[in-house]
Amino acid sequence: VNTVQLIRAKRDGGTLSPEQITALVDAYTAGAVPDYQMSAFLMAAFLRGLSDEEAAALTRAMLYSGEVLDLSDVRGTKVDKHSTGGVGDKVSLALAPIVAACGVPVPMISGRGLGHTGGTLDKLEAIPGFRTDLDIDTYRRQLAEIGVVMIGQTAEIAPADRKLYALRDVTATVEFIPFIAASIMSKKLAEGIDALVLDVKAGRGAFMREEADARRLAETLVGIGTEFGKPTVALLTAMDVPLGRGVGNWPETAEAIRMLHGDTDGAEDFAEVTLALAGEMLALGGAAGSAQEGRERAETAISDGSALDKMRQLVATQGGDVTVIDEPDTRPGSLPVAVLEAPAEAEGYVADLDALALGLAAVALGAGRATKEDVVDPVAGFRLLKKPGDSVLAGEPLVEVFAGDPARLDREAVLGAFRFAPEPPPQRPHILDRLTRDGWEGR
Amino acid sequence: VNTVQLIRAKRDGGTLSPEQITALVDAYTAGAVPDYQMSAFLMAAFLRGLSDEEAAALTRAMLYSGEVLDLSDVRGTKVDKHSTGGVGDKVSLALAPIVAACGVPVPMISGRGLGHTGGTLDKLEAIPGFRTDLDIDTYRRQLAEIGVVMIGQTAEIAPADRKLYALRDVTATVEFIPFIAASIMSKKLAEGIDALVLDVKAGRGAFMREEADARRLAETLVGIGTEFGKPTVALLTAMDVPLGRGVGNWPETAEAIRMLHGDTDGAEDFAEVTLALAGEMLALGGAAGSAQEGRERAETAISDGSALDKMRQLVATQGGDVTVIDEPDTRPGSLPVAVLEAPAEAEGYVADLDALALGLAAVALGAGRATKEDVVDPVAGFRLLKKPGDSVLAGEPLVEVFAGDPARLDREAVLGAFRFAPEPPPQRPHILDRLTRDGWEGR
Repeated sequence: VNTVQLIRAKRDGGTLSPEQITALVDAYTAGAVPDYQMSAFLMAAFLRGLSDEEAAALTRAMLYSGEVLDLSDVRGTKVDKHSTGGVGDKVSLALAPIVAACGVPVPMISGRGLGHTGGTLDKLEAIPGFRTDLDIDTYRRQLAEIGVVMIGQTAEIAPADRKLYALRDVTATVEFIPFIAASIMSKKLAEGIDALVLDVKAGRGAFMREEADARRLAETLVGIGTEFGKPTVALLTAMDVPLGRGVGNWPETAEAIRMLHGDTDGAEDFAEVTLALAGEMLALGGAAGSAQEGRERAETAISDGSALDKMRQLVATQGGDVTVIDEPDTRPGSLPVAVLEAPAEAEGYVADLDALALGLAAVALGAGRATKEDVVDPVAGFRLLKKPGDSVLAGEPLVEVFAGDPARLDREAVLGAFRFAPEPPPQRPHILDRLTRDGWEGR
Repeated sequence: VNTVQLIRAKRDGGTLSPEQITALVDAYTAGAVPDYQMSAFLMAAFLRGLSDEEAAALTRAMLYSGEVLDLSDVRGTKVDKHSTGGVGDKVSLALAPIVAACGVPVPMISGRGLGHTGGTLDKLEAIPGFRTDLDIDTYRRQLAEIGVVMIGQTAEIAPADRKLYALRDVTATVEFIPFIAASIMSKKLAEGIDALVLDVKAGRGAFMREEADARRLAETLVGIGTEFGKPTVALLTAMDVPLGRGVGNWPETAEAIRMLHGDTDGAEDFAEVTLALAGEMLALGGAAGSAQEGRERAETAISDGSALDKMRQLVATQGGDVTVIDEPDTRPGSLPVAVLEAPAEAEGYVADLDALALGLAAVALGAGRATKEDVVDPVAGFRLLKKPGDSVLAGEPLVEVFAGDPARLDREAVLGAFRFAPEPPPQRPHILDRLTRDGWEGR
């Protein structure tokens, strides 16, 4: 592979063949192409663009840079969900047991949080004893036995993605849809799934702030999934305001557990998004004739306790303490260390709540990482007693604060994320649109 | 310095402050910014562009990355020339002694050839014993003593340029005018010069194939020189056809020596370009009231033998064998190993001669390097017995071939560089235009 020639071709706006992209990624993964050449290529691609065919070739090369799991010996249509990430997004923790309880196997490989959005692994590990570092054999066996498994990325899966992601992070080549899509899809396709549901978030608390960008990302993701023969559906969901009431690892996990107990804590957005995604997964997994029917099955799995049973089984199998599944409040750190009250200007309603500002305040409190080396505080975070649309008066309790180190609380930052108004704000939909291979539904 | 932020700013089309560019180059030179970040920045700049102010800041940062020589203790106005490179461009070898013989000190730090264009160092080293690796103290002392010194780049001069040039070479970020200009000017300004003459070549044998690109490069170079307070003049010269009759290291050096003997071998283009550049240098150096007057002084220095004396003194001082200055044909390898004859279709005139094709044939014969590690054959090359405009009949001698290893001759490639026609081609000017700080003369 003549690397300089490939860089030059992309620099000059040319299109590379799938063979050229494969050769480049293979050589990079093998260490034959140095970082400094790959970063020049990444920047050229970022600025000149990649065609759909190039993006698919990049995904394929990253996918086959490592092991591609074959789960065909596990009965059923394996379906996973991926979210592009947001503040308070604990959906996976409730969703995986719900869908598995309805008979559709869920093999889920997740990441850690970086920046203001949380990571599913960190939330799972807030359950005392829960292990996410299972090897591939255990992953496969557990999926066959209980129909659900939730682990972290292993060294075998898409090593090119790990190497490229680290390089993109330090060369300002992260925010480029074909790279984002290839990174997501190479990992998901390597898991051994048969179908995939995507939660693509748009808004100030999301990676894609602009809805138009989120739509393009969704289109690229669904296009790649379709190209690889995996039925893929994307929901475009709102991420201007934190999802649900919990923000932070244990606050979110506890909220997800409570939801499986049938207690939504009045957070209709979290329930709405979770049930909609469950409906899609059950329809793709063949356990329901439509997403609507799947949603109804999911509601039944919550009301009849089978989803909670599945969660208990998942936690027990992965070494976690099932006590906190039955009684989440018994986990140490579940009591608030402070309650912030609504300020003097709160004479009416919460008008707005900035997900990004609150997410950053949670990171400052210890819930997330500023750098990869930081250790998270599993209990740190917030419970939002009031969300946009809720009525509120000055002095009313607004936010419960949880933290191992209360001194890290930045009250001004938390309160500054709220806006108040005498009138309630207009209601905004939680699910903005739905994309299948046939196109946008156009909600 | 937040490198990712600077890369992102340039990626998004922003303009960096001089302080930001300085911080980036300083950190890169010190090893604090890794190659993979710098190459992403280089590609972003290549595709988004650099303003004149950014290019000047880059030049300044590269210039001050190493030692900036102060030659103020050497009497006179020190003037150097830089050529952007072409096939058969042996001008420096004749020019430096001519200008020094007229009383203007010439401190010249040159490079080696890479690709189809030759390098002055390789040509000088074709003189048996000639040393180009003098240290800075010797450089300074020799300039003071005999008024001319010709060496290679030292470790002290513009280390950022060496590091950046190597990185650009492997990341497809070479052909970008602000980088080219910063690389040239940082090295030249570090030499301790008071004024500079540039030979910017345009055409298929030049780095800039398009005249418009060569003009932009000249404008950038003169702009930087002016910004740094060094009077700078550029001549735009033609490089479609090899300059002069010799191509290859010793064939070119021998031709330059013969010119100082008063023998131009009928190659008016070489004499024309050399005398024009000499005139500019002598005018800038205060030894002539105008470039025209300087040109006349240069002609006198050749006819009265003082330029040849200066050449002999230069060679003797730098350890070279002066016998070959007096009798160039006595150097081993000066006899042709083959003579190529004009083919059957040559019934009239040489219509055209492709400098690039002939330059590449010379490299194949051993005159140049395909990679930096290659060793050059000092005698390998050609003497063009016929050039465009010369009458020629089938079977007439066309090219003399010199080589340590005649088996490396590709006859087809050499003959393929020629075109023949029954009528002479239109005469083309050798010097296309002239640029000073006041703008193009508009020839």
